[in-house]
Amino acid sequence: MPNLSDKGIYLPPSPIRKLVPFAERAKSRGLKVYHLNIGQPDIRTPQIAVEAVKAIQENVFAYGHSAGNESYRRKLVRYYQGVGIDVTPDDMVITVGGSEAIFMAMTICLNPGDEVIVPEPFYANYNGFAMEAGVNIKPISSTIANDFALPPMEDFERLITPRTKAILICNPNNPTGYVYSKEEYAQLRDIVLRHDLYLMVDEVYREFCYDGTECFSVMNLQGLEQNVVMIDSVSKRYSMCGVRLGTLVTRNQDIIAAALRMGQARLCPPYLAQVAAEAALDAPASYFKEVHDEYAARRNCIIKALNQIEGVYTPMPKGSFYSIVKLPIDSSERFAQWLLEEFEYKGQTVMVAPATGFYASCYLGHDEIRIAYVINQHDLLAAAECLKQALLVYPGRTIHR
Amino acid sequence: MPNLSDKGIYLPPSPIRKLVPFAERAKSRGLKVYHLNIGQPDIRTPQIAVEAVKAIQENVFAYGHSAGNESYRRKLVRYYQGVGIDVTPDDMVITVGGSEAIFMAMTICLNPGDEVIVPEPFYANYNGFAMEAGVNIKPISSTIANDFALPPMEDFERLITPRTKAILICNPNNPTGYVYSKEEYAQLRDIVLRHDLYLMVDEVYREFCYDGTECFSVMNLQGLEQNVVMIDSVSKRYSMCGVRLGTLVTRNQDIIAAALRMGQARLCPPYLAQVAAEAALDAPASYFKEVHDEYAARRNCIIKALNQIEGVYTPMPKGSFYSIVKLPIDSSERFAQWLLEEFEYKGQTVMVAPATGFYASCYLGHDEIRIAYVINQHDLLAAAECLKQALLVYPGRTIHR
Repeated sequence: MPNLSDKGIYLPPSPIRKLVPFAERAKSRGLKVYHLNIGQPDIRTPQIAVEAVKAIQENVFAYGHSAGNESYRRKLVRYYQGVGIDVTPDDMVITVGGSEAIFMAMTICLNPGDEVIVPEPFYANYNGFAMEAGVNIKPISSTIANDFALPPMEDFERLITPRTKAILICNPNNPTGYVYSKEEYAQLRDIVLRHDLYLMVDEVYREFCYDGTECFSVMNLQGLEQNVVMIDSVSKRYSMCGVRLGTLVTRNQDIIAAALRMGQARLCPPYLAQVAAEAALDAPASYFKEVHDEYAARRNCIIKALNQIEGVYTPMPKGSFYSIVKLPIDSSERFAQWLLEEFEYKGQTVMVAPATGFYASCYLGHDEIRIAYVINQHDLLAAAECLKQALLVYPGRTIHR
Repeated sequence: MPNLSDKGIYLPPSPIRKLVPFAERAKSRGLKVYHLNIGQPDIRTPQIAVEAVKAIQENVFAYGHSAGNESYRRKLVRYYQGVGIDVTPDDMVITVGGSEAIFMAMTICLNPGDEVIVPEPFYANYNGFAMEAGVNIKPISSTIANDFALPPMEDFERLITPRTKAILICNPNNPTGYVYSKEEYAQLRDIVLRHDLYLMVDEVYREFCYDGTECFSVMNLQGLEQNVVMIDSVSKRYSMCGVRLGTLVTRNQDIIAAALRMGQARLCPPYLAQVAAEAALDAPASYFKEVHDEYAARRNCIIKALNQIEGVYTPMPKGSFYSIVKLPIDSSERFAQWLLEEFEYKGQTVMVAPATGFYASCYLGHDEIRIAYVINQHDLLAAAECLKQALLVYPGRTIHR
């Protein structure tokens, strides 16, 4: 029996994967499990998108353009104009989720063995795409002490080697909820130009900013148009995570040409997804307002409830629908498993994502979890109460009352 | 401006891509262009699949299982039983088209720099996936002289090096239409076991075999269950190329586990595609019979018409819906471009795929084209007549009348 490749052996599993059987067993014991662990919103897909799928007239679900249907790309141009981003249909390649856009960007811009600097904690799946592309992620630590702001430029400078080819950030951030400021972007521009790097920004949570915070798009950063790749997706914007449709956006036409050649190999992005996403672009402003207000209310509700628990701290996130929560515990992995395996409060428990999965540095995240506030406020409060009760009895509690 | 990666620079374009502008210009000159160049069937997607999509009840197009929806995998098991293949839902990972299955198989089984032997001519996009995975394709020539049968085992043995990790074949074959026999598979088994290789077989044209030819599945090859990976797709079977849904099938659970981890990184295969494909599994037998008979009739019609042209030879393909056609020409690339740019016959011309794109050996395929018989018989005959007339006047004709 032949060996697997190194990638086949070492490709990382999803950080919450090993918890899934415990959650299933908890449910089979009759427990109600509140899912704070995954960014699967309960928000409805825009009705107009669902209706468009139901109204398809095609008799043959045929191949489309490898860069995505032109009608969809043209309409995306108008969407981007509406959020202050000026691009053309030729500045984008429609991808199979934001996932494919990230993998394409890494493959096209970095050789195997090259390095990309990513502030940690970061979206865990970057690890998988980096390994598939043979690229090394160099983590740079952002800390809960300053609400996960961009690390100082000296820290970036210290990490740069001859193999550093890119900086990758997620804005608004998954898992921290941080939204980078214009000033932080100006710092990034300087370092990117000084070292001739690519700047890749995952903006899939663009619509989810709170308290009047503005999401500054990297596409509006002047003077480095050839260095910038923006990753986008309809998954969260229209609560259609399952359709798998994203976009790679850049004004660097060499990158577009290469992405199109990668796109030709896999033929085209999914047709039915494009039908749904093209229609979703006509969702009324009221859809976004409702969704935004709902997330803002959820955020206020869960963040307040968590910070009222003794020994717990979580920043007030400015965007996305996640937050990192610091807990008085020995091990977030043990705690998350214990919640599902040994704890219950009035027939309920909580599933959380240990923050260790979002750090590349193995010594970080052991006293932190990531929560997603994608369930309703009643359930969020019940989940917070569960966490409060759990921390009273968790055997691995570190800060005693 | 930073450099692209080597892959970004050298990823191969689609072999017919450069012809597309010529085809567009021909059409804008008012010419009718018969498309023999691409495997996009005009066959209708099963009505039951279209109806299932129109009948969706979900309000949230949510993430599904990373290995594909369990209901779909369970139903696939029954489909496979129906074609004599005994597998379980845990022997498969649902992928984004056969494309992703190929890329996964290469990434999981071969390290960068490892070699996979592929009989040429082969499906051109294998080049793209191999380059993305950093894998080297070692072509082994099959020839039109013996209708593209499996090359002799001595030729395989000669190509095997310490870095050879796999053999990849497509059965029924794109682009040759050849269907490998049980005896040929027995030879492959011996060499695979002797050298401890993986055997990867792309079976996406399984349903398209003619004249009673049976498509022997690699999943039924005894004694090398741990070495075999089968690639499948609904694109051609149900004429739903655009939905992008395939399957990686293997009894090697290490490969399944690794494919699942790759699958977790990209979260899930497209949801709406799974709705369509799951429903398509209930398409009546009459659907396949009609489709099969239509392709068989088209094959008979175009192959006969082509072989009647002086200086032209194409084998009678036993499967798929392609054939390689040998022409009395100097350069298939020049000929294909000339057809679109300079030739017309009664206001018509033909778009064909130069066979050079399907050979890795740069000296092969210059007097061959690939045709796809995915248009109706009337148009196929008109296309053959165009080719006949074109060969009478093509300046690069090599064998003179």
